[in-house]
Amino acid sequence: MKIYDFEGFPNPARVRIALAEKGATDKMQFVHVDVLKGEHRLPGFLAMNPNATVPVLELGDGTTISECTAITEYIDHAFDGISLTGTTAKDRAVIHMMQCRAEQGVMDAVGTYFHHATPGLGALELYQNKEWGLKQRERAIAGMRYFDSVLATQPFAAGQHFSVADITLFVGLNFADFAKIELPADLPHLKAWRARMAQRPSMGG
Amino acid sequence: MKIYDFEGFPNPARVRIALAEKGATDKMQFVHVDVLKGEHRLPGFLAMNPNATVPVLELGDGTTISECTAITEYIDHAFDGISLTGTTAKDRAVIHMMQCRAEQGVMDAVGTYFHHATPGLGALELYQNKEWGLKQRERAIAGMRYFDSVLATQPFAAGQHFSVADITLFVGLNFADFAKIELPADLPHLKAWRARMAQRPSMGG
Ligand SMILES: N[C@@H](CCC(=O)N[C@@H](CS)C(=O)NCC(=O)O)C(=O)O
Ligand SMILES: N[C@@H](CCC(=O)N[C@@H](CS)C(=O)NCC(=O)O)C(=O)O
Repeated sequence: MKIYDFEGFPNPARVRIALAEKGATDKMQFVHVDVLKGEHRLPGFLAMNPNATVPVLELGDGTTISECTAITEYIDHAFDGISLTGTTAKDRAVIHMMQCRAEQGVMDAVGTYFHHATPGLGALELYQNKEWGLKQRERAIAGMRYFDSVLATQPFAAGQHFSVADITLFVGLNFADFAKIELPADLPHLKAWRARMAQRPSMGG
Repeated sequence: MKIYDFEGFPNPARVRIALAEKGATDKMQFVHVDVLKGEHRLPGFLAMNPNATVPVLELGDGTTISECTAITEYIDHAFDGISLTGTTAKDRAVIHMMQCRAEQGVMDAVGTYFHHATPGLGALELYQNKEWGLKQRERAIAGMRYFDSVLATQPFAAGQHFSVADITLFVGLNFADFAKIELPADLPHLKAWRARMAQRPSMGG
C-alpha cells in the first residue's frame, strides 16, 4: 500500500500519526507529491483524487482513498491495535462527532484562515476571500475554547480513550502555530492535554 | 431514543432517510425544535449541541449526538438491516470518502450558498459573506458534475451498493432545488440515478 503525501504538511501528519498509533507505518510506502510545485494539480494526481489534496491512500488493488478521516477508517479496520474510531455504536458516534468538531472547528478553520487571509501557498492560491478567512480565524479560536471546556471534564477529546478526534485536534493546534493563530492564554485544560499528547511517540514524544 | 429536528429541513431529512432504510423510524421519538423561531440557539438546546444545529440524537443514557454522519454511524451500528456505512475496511473507507465528497461538494456547498448569498433564514442570519456564498454555488455545480461522471460507471454514489453517500447526495440535490440552484441539463447519469433513488420508500417513493 502507498501513501501519497508531503511530509510535514498538516493533513498528511494526521494519517502518519494514525499509522504510528496502529504500529502500521512500515506497511506503507510513502510517495512524495511536490505540492509546492503544483504536482497535485496535474492529471496523474487528479485521477487519484479529483479534489487535488494530499494525503491519498492507494490500496493493493489500485483503489485510491482521499480524506484523512476516510483513510483513518481504512487503517483502523485493516490493522490491529488501539481502536481509533471506536467499536460500539455509541463510541463510534461520539468519536465521529468529536472528530467533526475538531476538524470543522479547529483544523479546517485554521486551514481556511491560512489559505484565505494569509499568503498561504503563494501562487497556488487561485482564489482568496480574506473576510471569510478572518471569520474562520475567529471560529478556530472558538473551537479551542470549546475543547478547553470539554477537556476540563474528560481526559481525551472524545471521552475516556484516545481516538482520531485527538489526532485531528492535536494537528489542528500545530497548524494554528504555523499559521500564527495564538492559543489564548486562558485555556489550561487544552494546554495540559496538548502537553500529554506531545509525549505520545506517534506525536513526536 | 429521541431525535430533535425540524421536519422538512434538509439535514434532518438525511437522518430520517437513514432511519427509514434501517426500518428503525418507530424506535425514535421526534421532538420538534422551532428553528425558525431560534429555539436551537437557546441554552437548553445549546447544552445538547453547542453548534446550534438540528438534527440531534439523544440516547437513552442522555448522551447527545450531533452531525448527521455521526448520528448515521450510530443508527447503522445499533439497528439491523442494510448497511449504510459499509462493513469491510475498504468499503468503509470508500463510503466515508464519497459521503465527504457529497457533503462538502454538494450538500454543504448548497447550504453555504443558501445561508450566505440568499436571504437564507432571514433574521437568523447573523453574518453573511455573499461572495463566498456565490463561490459555493459554483462548487455545488462542480460537485453535481463530478457525481454525474461517477454515476456514469457505477450504480450508486459509493459503488455497487446503496449507502449514506447516496442519502447525502440525494438530499443535497433536493436542497439545491429549494435554493434554486438548477441542475445543469447535461448530467444524464445523475438525473437517472436521482429518479431511481426517488423510488425508494425512504425517499418518498
Ligand atoms: N479534508 C482533506 C484536506 C486535505 C488538504 O487540504 N491537504 C493539503 C495539505 S495539508 C493540500 O493538499 N493542499 C493543496 C492545496 O491547497 O492546493 C483531508 O482530510 O485530507
Ligand atoms: N453538518 C450538520 C449540519 C446541520 C445543519 O446545518 N442543520 C440546519 C437545518 S438543515 C440548522 O440547524 N440550521 C440552523 C441555523 O442555520 O441557524 C449536520 O450534519 O447535522
